[in-house]
Amino acid sequence: MLTANYIGDRTITVDEREPQALRPGEVRIAVAYVGICGTDLHVFHGDMDGRVTTPATIGHEMSGTIAELGPGVEGWAVGDPVTVMPLDWDGTCPACLAGNEHICQNLDFIGIDSPGALQESWNVPASTLVRLPDAVSLRDAALVEPVAVAVHDVRRSELAPGDKAVIIGAGPIGVLIATVAQAFGAEVVIAEIDPRRRAVAEEVGLRTLDPSAVDQVAWVEEWTGGAGADVVFEVSGAAAAVLGATALAKVRGTLVVVAIHSQPRPIDLHRLFWRELRILGARVYQRQDFERAIELVAGGAIPADRLITRVVPLPEVATAFADLEAGQAMKILVQVAR
Amino acid sequence: MLTANYIGDRTITVDEREPQALRPGEVRIAVAYVGICGTDLHVFHGDMDGRVTTPATIGHEMSGTIAELGPGVEGWAVGDPVTVMPLDWDGTCPACLAGNEHICQNLDFIGIDSPGALQESWNVPASTLVRLPDAVSLRDAALVEPVAVAVHDVRRSELAPGDKAVIIGAGPIGVLIATVAQAFGAEVVIAEIDPRRRAVAEEVGLRTLDPSAVDQVAWVEEWTGGAGADVVFEVSGAAAAVLGATALAKVRGTLVVVAIHSQPRPIDLHRLFWRELRILGARVYQRQDFERAIELVAGGAIPADRLITRVVPLPEVATAFADLEAGQAMKILVQVAR
Ligand SMILES: [Zn+2]
Ligand SMILES: [Zn+2]
Repeated sequence: MLTANYIGDRTITVDEREPQALRPGEVRIAVAYVGICGTDLHVFHGDMDGRVTTPATIGHEMSGTIAELGPGVEGWAVGDPVTVMPLDWDGTCPACLAGNEHICQNLDFIGIDSPGALQESWNVPASTLVRLPDAVSLRDAALVEPVAVAVHDVRRSELAPGDKAVIIGAGPIGVLIATVAQAFGAEVVIAEIDPRRRAVAEEVGLRTLDPSAVDQVAWVEEWTGGAGADVVFEVSGAAAAVLGATALAKVRGTLVVVAIHSQPRPIDLHRLFWRELRILGARVYQRQDFERAIELVAGGAIPADRLITRVVPLPEVATAFADLEAGQAMKILVQVAR
Repeated sequence: MLTANYIGDRTITVDEREPQALRPGEVRIAVAYVGICGTDLHVFHGDMDGRVTTPATIGHEMSGTIAELGPGVEGWAVGDPVTVMPLDWDGTCPACLAGNEHICQNLDFIGIDSPGALQESWNVPASTLVRLPDAVSLRDAALVEPVAVAVHDVRRSELAPGDKAVIIGAGPIGVLIATVAQAFGAEVVIAEIDPRRRAVAEEVGLRTLDPSAVDQVAWVEEWTGGAGADVVFEVSGAAAAVLGATALAKVRGTLVVVAIHSQPRPIDLHRLFWRELRILGARVYQRQDFERAIELVAGGAIPADRLITRVVPLPEVATAFADLEAGQAMKILVQVAR
């Protein structure tokens, strides 16, 4: 079978390998599509060399069909269309025991800490499978994982119908959060400096603002009748965005920090105090986020056609990384099945 | 009547003045005791000169008895022992309309934005009165306001019985938060570098740790069986404490920022993300916080004798500020009634 492997030094190779035997409780998936995301790009850049073991088969946004059931697997059949929630927890740490398995203190994130989906034949624990309905194409189903991230972020914010939300940053996750927040009944605006990203957000029907051209605090004040936004999602990763985000939120409003900030960031704690704000971290997803994400993709709430910039065959996977790096794509899928 | 007035330049004068006439809805209070707090010290230092109008009669932690009822006041009688919740809101801004009157966007904090309790005869809106039971002495009742701050902080954290909380900073508010958290059924430890403050905390029966002598992250890990603290209260005001606080909290744990940080502070947003932490701002109090604070003072849960370092008569109010400034006191009360 063909596999794509990060071997270090900003290099992905495509190699022929022998499929591995199934262990008890595992299933073999014939992988159909794999989306490439920012985390994969971080691995490619070497930012996560301390965590990945090379050669590393990465990829965790995927769709496929079950090709074989390992010993002891029940409730699934060969041919079932599936996606994978790529989390493998220990079930015994304090976080797991408190019901927060998705942030297990010893979490194995499949596709980073163990082999991922960029291979024709992928073995995963059956417990990670999520069933796909017939209404969702395998192509669109490769978006379920990033949509589940957005659903988790929105659920965590406790955004309610009729609320107003500001999303800072119109990359793929920002656009998905805005779309999901709308699907949850909120009004949204997406703040983005880059005109190309703003254009993509506008194409999928989102209201945008350019913080380099308008006073975003005044804009949000007027939009919300002097109250401030119910929820602000920081998805840009920029220090200035974090510092400014607290000024956009209403009294008792919420700031969800979605972007990964590897450096400590200055936060306006006086504003946090003055308005009794709440700042929340949000990480990956829970099973109900996947289920809701599948409903949203199946129901057409996610503009898949606009979000998927390009589909490339597995042997051309390196071009997907190059295009994403150049900022020339929202989402590129790798077609793994020949 | 005697009044104490901040006149700028780190100076408080005591002056004879004519009592003012009562307006409709107001009551006149014969003030008994006034506690001096960190906010009063900020005013004294000139840090709030942009907000206060000099000469400024400050003071907002108090007890007294009703001396006269203004037109239209019902439900109160001359002689009733009271304290005051010193918040006057507009009732019309978005925060008020959402039920968050205590952080009204146009809040008048009585004692800063309008005249406070350091006067023998103090006129306040009857709506701010809180009734004191006979079981509470007027001296101890001057602690109700700072205890209400601590109750608000603890309620906001959603601390549950059996939870473990770390309080960073053993000043008056830190000690009160630790005491209140214990009264709510939590186990607490208070982290403090200053040995004198640690000694006071230990005298009132609190467990302490010295972050300059022990690895506090390792200490908390062991104390909590590897989980981390349920809640961390940042009461020190130090930048390093804020940066380190996130490392003490469990998965989905809470950091309440109680200290006022006038500068933006670096926060470890990677830890916020990794453990899905929650950071909360907390400001002043709501009426139920006052009611719970009175119960705690009446029931002996607050070690008033240990917390009240000294009581000075109104003409000597300047010595109270000097002692607090020198860090030689937890709480000094001014006895206003002659
Ligand atoms: Zn675990
Ligand atoms: Zn108001």
